[in-house]
Amino acid sequence: MEKEGETLQAWKERLGQELDRVVAFWMEHSHDQEHGGFFTCLGRNGKVYDDLKYVWLQGRQVWMYCRLYRKFERFRRPELLDSAKAGGEFLLRYARVAPPGKKCAFVLTRDGRPVKVQRTIFSECFYIMAMDELWRVTGEARYKSEAVEMMDQIVHWVRKDPSGLGRPWLSGAPASESMAVPMMLLNLVEQLGEADKEMASKYAELDDWCAQRILQHVQRDGQAVLENVSEDGKELPGCLGRHQNAGHALEAGWFLLRHATRKGDPELRAHIIDKFLLLPFRSGWDPDHGGLLYFQDVDGLCPTQLEWAMKLWWPHSEAMIAFLMGYSDSGDPALLHLFYQVAEYTFRQFRDPEHGEWFGYLNRDGSVALTIKGGPFKGEWETGWGLGSSGNLVDPGPPNSPSRLSPQAASTCRGA
Amino acid sequence: MEKEGETLQAWKERLGQELDRVVAFWMEHSHDQEHGGFFTCLGRNGKVYDDLKYVWLQGRQVWMYCRLYRKFERFRRPELLDSAKAGGEFLLRYARVAPPGKKCAFVLTRDGRPVKVQRTIFSECFYIMAMDELWRVTGEARYKSEAVEMMDQIVHWVRKDPSGLGRPWLSGAPASESMAVPMMLLNLVEQLGEADKEMASKYAELDDWCAQRILQHVQRDGQAVLENVSEDGKELPGCLGRHQNAGHALEAGWFLLRHATRKGDPELRAHIIDKFLLLPFRSGWDPDHGGLLYFQDVDGLCPTQLEWAMKLWWPHSEAMIAFLMGYSDSGDPALLHLFYQVAEYTFRQFRDPEHGEWFGYLNRDGSVALTIKGGPFKGEWETGWGLGSSGNLVDPGPPNSPSRLSPQAASTCRGA
Repeated sequence: MEKEGETLQAWKERLGQELDRVVAFWMEHSHDQEHGGFFTCLGRNGKVYDDLKYVWLQGRQVWMYCRLYRKFERFRRPELLDSAKAGGEFLLRYARVAPPGKKCAFVLTRDGRPVKVQRTIFSECFYIMAMDELWRVTGEARYKSEAVEMMDQIVHWVRKDPSGLGRPWLSGAPASESMAVPMMLLNLVEQLGEADKEMASKYAELDDWCAQRILQHVQRDGQAVLENVSEDGKELPGCLGRHQNAGHALEAGWFLLRHATRKGDPELRAHIIDKFLLLPFRSGWDPDHGGLLYFQDVDGLCPTQLEWAMKLWWPHSEAMIAFLMGYSDSGDPALLHLFYQVAEYTFRQFRDPEHGEWFGYLNRDGSVALTIKGGPFKGEWETGWGLGSSGNLVDPGPPNSPSRLSPQAASTCRGA
Repeated sequence: MEKEGETLQAWKERLGQELDRVVAFWMEHSHDQEHGGFFTCLGRNGKVYDDLKYVWLQGRQVWMYCRLYRKFERFRRPELLDSAKAGGEFLLRYARVAPPGKKCAFVLTRDGRPVKVQRTIFSECFYIMAMDELWRVTGEARYKSEAVEMMDQIVHWVRKDPSGLGRPWLSGAPASESMAVPMMLLNLVEQLGEADKEMASKYAELDDWCAQRILQHVQRDGQAVLENVSEDGKELPGCLGRHQNAGHALEAGWFLLRHATRKGDPELRAHIIDKFLLLPFRSGWDPDHGGLLYFQDVDGLCPTQLEWAMKLWWPHSEAMIAFLMGYSDSGDPALLHLFYQVAEYTFRQFRDPEHGEWFGYLNRDGSVALTIKGGPFKGEWETGWGLGSSGNLVDPGPPNSPSRLSPQAASTCRGA
């Protein structure tokens, strides 16, 4: 018991120190003082190698800075808030491709002109995350109304009519659902409803809908989480249907654990731990080299994605949060030991002791494949908040208490 | 001299035997007897793991079968021609998303319903390749008119108005040119003009335009071939501008060598060998493990593509053709030795002695990353025709003759 407490305490300190290093890296290298917003294409030593601004990462960094400012005493620093606000203004001014239309670009030039548009909802999701957090730290209502209006638009695209996303209807395209969609929406429901009864009530039905849709991705008599299923929850044929993404399953897992806490449903919690934490870990952990494989085929066939056997930083960050939260919620020490296993691999393989921050992309054997610290899909988000959330979830008190997640810790968990 | 002749003769036999094995693999496993067309998602042992039909690969396999039938006595077999015709009918019936519009799908269901559409010209290019070859083997004029009408549509999209491709205009998107576009068009010019003075004359101006546009991709005082440049031939900023693809450069190289032969221009030939054969090989060949790296950044920075350091089969197939053709055209033994270097790596690393055909995707160290033999982007094309072209280019006669490319061999070279 005592030794467990010491190990936990040591991890809490390690997570905190690493968070400080990561935040320092982004504060030193990523701020665009001229146009606002953030450079995210950063080389190993932090040098900017491209000045394009990826909207996902702009929104996430604004969110992250606000969240740090709001939740951690030591990050309540004006330069974080100022940078977050400058990033928010950049998004307000430039993210939407054709205002008043809500569709956001995927990537902008440094000065905010649209370069590419994805026909999905994700830029818009991170726009909401940024705006809602800006509202929470500044109290300015215009941020909140931006967030809510965009949320209503996304819900319309997902549940009523996707035509505004720009994808043509094609007779051979299966009516499939990627788990990413209800997962992101569930995360937004939590974000918008935090300590806000009116919002929580507005999105209560959506909260349940998202959870039910995610749960449909448990297939094959409960033996696998599949990334894509039909809209009525059936397995799809071919590679699309057999595709597995352990990182997404684990991430969905801790979003669902938060949902189960909101619902006060311990049976659901046990189901989630079994299907979204333990199952993806068992199938996704590489027995030869350690680490989570990026993609798998549920029948054990070779995936067609070239990067399938690589190890990416973000599934590991999600797994750390998921296992700590599972442990906090259930008190099951097996989950704590899985956290240790993932965290040890992660700190050993992804962390760059020389220049700070984490490598994002390793070969199967754990060697570094890409030396970049930031790129089109990698920003401060998963490292920073993975560390922040995990650190706050660690409670080095007695490990067998029935629920170890304090309300304060729960509310600091980061979004998808 | 004599030893060189023996080595060449041995390679000619090896290439021929390997071609037979590859053709046998696809004939055994890929034919869809029910709907026509080809399964291309084939596992290591040839088993179909997905029945989607990728239009690039349908067009390429039709072309390949026709070309084998037309150019190799031993492949003049009715089952090749019948399968090619069934594939051609499948394309005629289903490839276009909304006939009479010309835009083709990227992927179809097994029974021909569109699943995805790319906003590029490449499905259409391979449709043309298939139709033109079908015309040449059957003499049926409807195939030729299909090819020419589609060609006119593509030229319109590329040179006049791209709006029919469906990409929205975005103010921040640079007016960039991917080398793939003039490269594919140059290849189509050669295809349509083969032994056809009327077609050669119709596309003579396009032939020159394509060559001039490709040559613009030589940048940095002749020290690098860049995959993307501005429309007026200037280097672009950021990762897009610094992107290099050695396989594309080598492939463009042998398309340009064919162009230089058409023009009877030995100075241009020397320039092409220097810039599109030797330069990409020098920068792209992995000094540690051998093989061509997939992508590079011209400044030596880390690319953002996860697969940048993998070894793919197709650049090696293109390199084999390019170096043999360069040798045939120039008689320079250095090029022959580069062919040997590439061919030895390729046969050692990509070939599957157990189940036939080649692996397509290796890790940097040469270990197999994906065991599939066919997938969304890998069909019979690059292995089969790389072997066929190379085999026909090998002339084990005296190595110092000024031009070693017979007209017959030249016309068998496969398209992009």
